[in-house]
Amino acid sequence: MRKVHIVGVGMVRIDRYYDKGYMQLIRDAAVSAFNDVKSYEPEAIVVGNMLSSTLYNQDSLAALALDAIGFRGLGGLKVEAACGSGGHAVIVGYSLVASGLYDQVMVVGVEKMSDYPTSTITSALAQAANAEYEYIYGVSFPALNALIMRLYMLKYEARREDMALWPVRMHEYGSRNPYAQLRNRITIEDVINSPIVSDPIRLMDSAPIGDGAAVIILSSEDVARKLSDTPVEIAGVGLGSDGLDLSSREELLNPISIKRAAEKAFRMSKLTPSDIDVAEIHDAFTITALLSIEGLGFADLGESWKLVKDGRFAVGDKPSVNLSGGLKARGHPVGATGVYQIAEIAMQLRGDFPGVKLDKAEKGLAMNTGGVGTLTSVVILKR
Amino acid sequence: MRKVHIVGVGMVRIDRYYDKGYMQLIRDAAVSAFNDVKSYEPEAIVVGNMLSSTLYNQDSLAALALDAIGFRGLGGLKVEAACGSGGHAVIVGYSLVASGLYDQVMVVGVEKMSDYPTSTITSALAQAANAEYEYIYGVSFPALNALIMRLYMLKYEARREDMALWPVRMHEYGSRNPYAQLRNRITIEDVINSPIVSDPIRLMDSAPIGDGAAVIILSSEDVARKLSDTPVEIAGVGLGSDGLDLSSREELLNPISIKRAAEKAFRMSKLTPSDIDVAEIHDAFTITALLSIEGLGFADLGESWKLVKDGRFAVGDKPSVNLSGGLKARGHPVGATGVYQIAEIAMQLRGDFPGVKLDKAEKGLAMNTGGVGTLTSVVILKR
Repeated sequence: MRKVHIVGVGMVRIDRYYDKGYMQLIRDAAVSAFNDVKSYEPEAIVVGNMLSSTLYNQDSLAALALDAIGFRGLGGLKVEAACGSGGHAVIVGYSLVASGLYDQVMVVGVEKMSDYPTSTITSALAQAANAEYEYIYGVSFPALNALIMRLYMLKYEARREDMALWPVRMHEYGSRNPYAQLRNRITIEDVINSPIVSDPIRLMDSAPIGDGAAVIILSSEDVARKLSDTPVEIAGVGLGSDGLDLSSREELLNPISIKRAAEKAFRMSKLTPSDIDVAEIHDAFTITALLSIEGLGFADLGESWKLVKDGRFAVGDKPSVNLSGGLKARGHPVGATGVYQIAEIAMQLRGDFPGVKLDKAEKGLAMNTGGVGTLTSVVILKR
Repeated sequence: MRKVHIVGVGMVRIDRYYDKGYMQLIRDAAVSAFNDVKSYEPEAIVVGNMLSSTLYNQDSLAALALDAIGFRGLGGLKVEAACGSGGHAVIVGYSLVASGLYDQVMVVGVEKMSDYPTSTITSALAQAANAEYEYIYGVSFPALNALIMRLYMLKYEARREDMALWPVRMHEYGSRNPYAQLRNRITIEDVINSPIVSDPIRLMDSAPIGDGAAVIILSSEDVARKLSDTPVEIAGVGLGSDGLDLSSREELLNPISIKRAAEKAFRMSKLTPSDIDVAEIHDAFTITALLSIEGLGFADLGESWKLVKDGRFAVGDKPSVNLSGGLKARGHPVGATGVYQIAEIAMQLRGDFPGVKLDKAEKGLAMNTGGVGTLTSVVILKR
């Protein structure tokens, strides 16, 4: 298996860009990535995106991305795994290089969500659920997660104020990340008193709606040093899944798709959860953060909320989790999020992440999931 | 680079399945593929599809596919490159195996188009064009191809009856393919007198609207013989692109995306166009067939229509092209088509294609494109 390195990353601040379309966002992120490498000559592009077909009548997004950055003739395709599209796109990019097909591949994560009212976005996001058994009955994506959050709190006797600790921490970190969409600090009371989205999920338990684009340039080992003085190796990758509709799952609080993806990535990297210095995990809702931590093996089932309460996973702990502010505060332009996460971990390992960072991190992990933990990717990086 | 083999294929007849959804079509094709191998244990699934988000509010199609065939926990993702999604999905599947990530990967191409009126489908297919510069002005996908057909006929002095030869031949082959949607024979007069879709494209120049699913099981070389007595090697793959909107292209009759994809696949396989015994090419419209033949290097630019008129590319010629009946008669369930093509070529090389077939074919090629030759994949197979 050829080793694959991340040689350049770029991103735009996540925001509501009413004046920018896909092309402008992709171009801005790509220019930032090109400025991060010594030279570049990508041979193919992989785009992670969820909503362009539904919201903008735009398929062939890979061709649009190539037009945006002025490249002609390159190979291109889009990867979709709902809100997990970005992480899956990076793994496809990884495979295109590791297989020997290409020496340099560009991965773009991009999403536009701001141009539509929230009801339209909520409806589009529900496409991550089963259309025939869930979507057409009007269930929303927050509602599906609310069922799980309620079950979690009941089974593990977690109180509402315990569950509020995560978003408070995320906003603290987000306030120091120049790429974050939300940079205001919040309190436990702010979370508990915020409007109900779908009981028990409140607005401050939920990732915001925003636009963003992030770019990662991947290369084979033999050219990595020519392109970057600080290449970051992709040491392990893994994919996993669970039943699409919740009614088909064996156990709602056992995140098997995250477990499967993590097992594969850890086995490949010959690392264990205790080796990881820094991680970015998928916390579209507070409950998602807890199940992600448990699925990745950073905590036993039902234990993560207690560890968060004890101050675990904060900056300086091993692992330090979501120093970017996570989906909650950095933002969650759905199909782009996984690419942001992996770019952030690469910057943490290089030591140049411009927000809350570790002094010395050698091994990092990014985990992104589409649906209610339905299609999961895990990527492990090391210096 | 690890060698990758096709060890099993399965498909359903392309038709208008008003009584079957995605899950039923995928299951039927998968069962057929499972019956084609000695054993199977796929570790990941790649789904090629264009329209599920737009028409059926269904993202996370990879998870739906896994539910359909009763697998849990596997990796899964969807690949989209408009009408070229299927071929791109096979190349992603190839990479997942060639990279060493997985030993067995299942690729599914699936599309449902029959449940909606033609106007809805025409609108959805136009998403393969540029949404901002083409789609919103009401241009249809046939209209974009009609511009190119008109230019081709003018520049190369091809007459309407010359252009009718291709669909006549495709219906002849389709009539003998049990998986083909259209199995009626037609004449030059039928083509010329069929209703105008977008002048000069007539109904009989156009692929039909239909539903279908095809499945390919890929494996690494070391397990291929355990799974199949007749594995077919993937000897070369390539991707290419051209500008998304036609107004941005340098030359409308020079199919650079097909050329780039073909160059890459031929270089990798160490073969040339003259080595190919049998090919399946993308003929969504008659003009697409001609540009595909030229882009692949089977004819010089502007020459393919004359060669077709001379009887070239018919069964027994080298290469024999579209013995399935092509998109025109076998059918074109858009995101599934590329998987059908590659399955058909694998069967031709194995000698068990149930329609028009060659006595002895050793090297085959499948070419699939999304948009107006925008995102192209080429896959070369050999026994």
